[in-house]
Amino acid sequence: MDRLPGFRDFYPEPLPHPDVWSADARQYIFDKWRAAARRYGFREYDGPPLEPLELFTTKSGEEIVGQLYNFTDKGQREIALRPEMTPTLARMVAAHERNYKKPIKWFAIPQLFRYERQQKGRLREHFQFNADIFGEADVAADAELIALLIDTLRSLGLTAQDFIIRLSSRNAWQEYFSQRSSDETKAYEFYQIIDKLEREQPETSKAKLAALGFSYDEITSFIKAGQPTAELNAILQNLAARGLGDFVKVDYQVIRGLAYYTGVVFEAFDQKGEFRAIAGGGRYDNLVKLISGGKVNLPALGFGMGDVVLFELLKSRGLLPKFEAGLDAFCLIEDETLRADSLKLIQDLRAVGYAVDYSLTPAKPDKQFKRAQEIKAAHTIKLERTATGELSARMKNLNTREEKVFAPADFAPHLSPKS
Amino acid sequence: MDRLPGFRDFYPEPLPHPDVWSADARQYIFDKWRAAARRYGFREYDGPPLEPLELFTTKSGEEIVGQLYNFTDKGQREIALRPEMTPTLARMVAAHERNYKKPIKWFAIPQLFRYERQQKGRLREHFQFNADIFGEADVAADAELIALLIDTLRSLGLTAQDFIIRLSSRNAWQEYFSQRSSDETKAYEFYQIIDKLEREQPETSKAKLAALGFSYDEITSFIKAGQPTAELNAILQNLAARGLGDFVKVDYQVIRGLAYYTGVVFEAFDQKGEFRAIAGGGRYDNLVKLISGGKVNLPALGFGMGDVVLFELLKSRGLLPKFEAGLDAFCLIEDETLRADSLKLIQDLRAVGYAVDYSLTPAKPDKQFKRAQEIKAAHTIKLERTATGELSARMKNLNTREEKVFAPADFAPHLSPKS
Repeated sequence: MDRLPGFRDFYPEPLPHPDVWSADARQYIFDKWRAAARRYGFREYDGPPLEPLELFTTKSGEEIVGQLYNFTDKGQREIALRPEMTPTLARMVAAHERNYKKPIKWFAIPQLFRYERQQKGRLREHFQFNADIFGEADVAADAELIALLIDTLRSLGLTAQDFIIRLSSRNAWQEYFSQRSSDETKAYEFYQIIDKLEREQPETSKAKLAALGFSYDEITSFIKAGQPTAELNAILQNLAARGLGDFVKVDYQVIRGLAYYTGVVFEAFDQKGEFRAIAGGGRYDNLVKLISGGKVNLPALGFGMGDVVLFELLKSRGLLPKFEAGLDAFCLIEDETLRADSLKLIQDLRAVGYAVDYSLTPAKPDKQFKRAQEIKAAHTIKLERTATGELSARMKNLNTREEKVFAPADFAPHLSPKS
Repeated sequence: MDRLPGFRDFYPEPLPHPDVWSADARQYIFDKWRAAARRYGFREYDGPPLEPLELFTTKSGEEIVGQLYNFTDKGQREIALRPEMTPTLARMVAAHERNYKKPIKWFAIPQLFRYERQQKGRLREHFQFNADIFGEADVAADAELIALLIDTLRSLGLTAQDFIIRLSSRNAWQEYFSQRSSDETKAYEFYQIIDKLEREQPETSKAKLAALGFSYDEITSFIKAGQPTAELNAILQNLAARGLGDFVKVDYQVIRGLAYYTGVVFEAFDQKGEFRAIAGGGRYDNLVKLISGGKVNLPALGFGMGDVVLFELLKSRGLLPKFEAGLDAFCLIEDETLRADSLKLIQDLRAVGYAVDYSLTPAKPDKQFKRAQEIKAAHTIKLERTATGELSARMKNLNTREEKVFAPADFAPHLSPKS
């Protein structure tokens, strides 16, 4: 019996098979995400992985159903596994925003699901770091959010040589569109063509744009010039003041496919262009109003960063640590008459925070020592009986080979904890 | 639009409504679970929240389907949201156990789902701490696992006055049964009656037991005597050696309803008997063989501890901390000409690990200070321009009211980090 296609098993390292993922690397990335969010004053939230189907179709239209894990439950409800976090977040904020001072800065690390047609290596679930700000219309919020995105990637060891934030603006494109077309109903169609410019043949884009009355050449010139709008300039200056100017550039090629973005949009890419986007986000000032049925109106912005592309990027740059069991000590029980006392010592060490393991059943001393080395324990500890019949504990640092002998009660303070 | 019945929204504290759950308390509990597991040398794993339906029916029979979130996916697969972690774990271990030294000690914190008929306050999802050991048949493994269970609860502030582990044995009951009946096919039916003894009317149990040829009175005497078997004695002695004897008692009333347990079984209860079981587990030496279709045979044991009962217990005992944003500093920007320099200071502090927030847009000094107090920042920091035009930073400890003035470059080392 195997797992479903497009889903992952996460194992402890070293990994037993190329087909499985590292639970240790996953937790390492989650810890970095969480720590970065907290340094920026973001608070954690979460919602249900299952939601009413309507929550997602309200936001994205009926066409999203084709990509969803949706079904009818035993209570005849139309429900879906969440494909993104933003609708849930907008629902939660709309329900209780009055109880929180603005701006609301929240983050989550949800698992998300999409039922896309199965392709080689294409996953149907991933984890995504979501950070959002509600209740602040000023671009200072956009800059703060982008700074968090940059610092999150930096905290994983990535530099300005590794990634770049491509900054763009729906407003800039809206202005571009309005100056050249009087048919606002075509705006979204226009954005979709811009969104595909990089991936489609120039001839295809050219024909589509011409049909809407736009010049392909003029548009490529507009993108190439990359003249920042006033709001983009404010963001660039804000980030430059923080010393983060090298991590961001204006790139109107980025427009973000989704319908609901309203202002600044951005995507993070690896500098070598080897991977899909590392992260993406922007303003969605109308969504809370839409989800709440008009009851609540709050400006909003956010980004999402998936674990899959990030993991591949970190791996390719050699930035993932080698993960071990991380034990402070392995207790050797070479004399079975000392097992009960050894259990007490192990318990006392664990009680003060040390990670300690031992052989559950009697085993030859060399086998126990080999196990201690295999799991990369920092120390071995061993109880011994002195000539006068008293107990002492011998600690050996497996790196320095240094040995020390203590009375058991004195032992704990001499071990330096791992964290 | 509201969330589905039986699902939870997790918000940052202070909570906006009695109907929602604390994301902070959840993370606090997860951190304690993870830390306890690591102190005991357990490694983290995870699997997919969706699995083939067959994985669960193989283990628990077709009757489990009535309690599952199961459906047919767009690829015509019969699938289910996981109601428990053990089948996934057994599948994962069976697939790659050769690559791991025994005993395998693993843990996970999965979200689990059950489609039970909706009752007031009854949830359809919860998170569960799962810890399991594979490849060790000796009861030393049972003792190690129970010690982890005890220490996990102790790390949350619970004492022997708060909870007790009721220790029992399928082997003891198997022996009891075999000595009195020659029809082994009735054994599971017999266990089910024992499992319900506490909840059913004595007359009902008496009749059911008589139908199988057993004496209710003899059974209640057997339970009351609570004579430990040799294997239970070994566990009690092992735990006593660790100083954990007060946390455990033999109680044959506990038998665990599930069919697959094979040896020692146990449940953790609050001492006042106010709540359902806090945790439960035992040996399941045949499950890996069953799930792997006979390919792999490994003794196994484990426990599960849900977040819901635990949360209620901790809350009722006053053992949940009050959670705040946990900021090290709030930066006051009283002079807007200093905003760019303030952003740099904030960035530098965050870069060395401090959690810092500030007003994204210009605000009156008293409003900024109020915000710093509201979010319980440990310090305020403020840039000032000296008479000679140079910058200095003023730090105020909001508890002690102590103030210090530094050059910005010297500032970071003077703030003590939260963690």
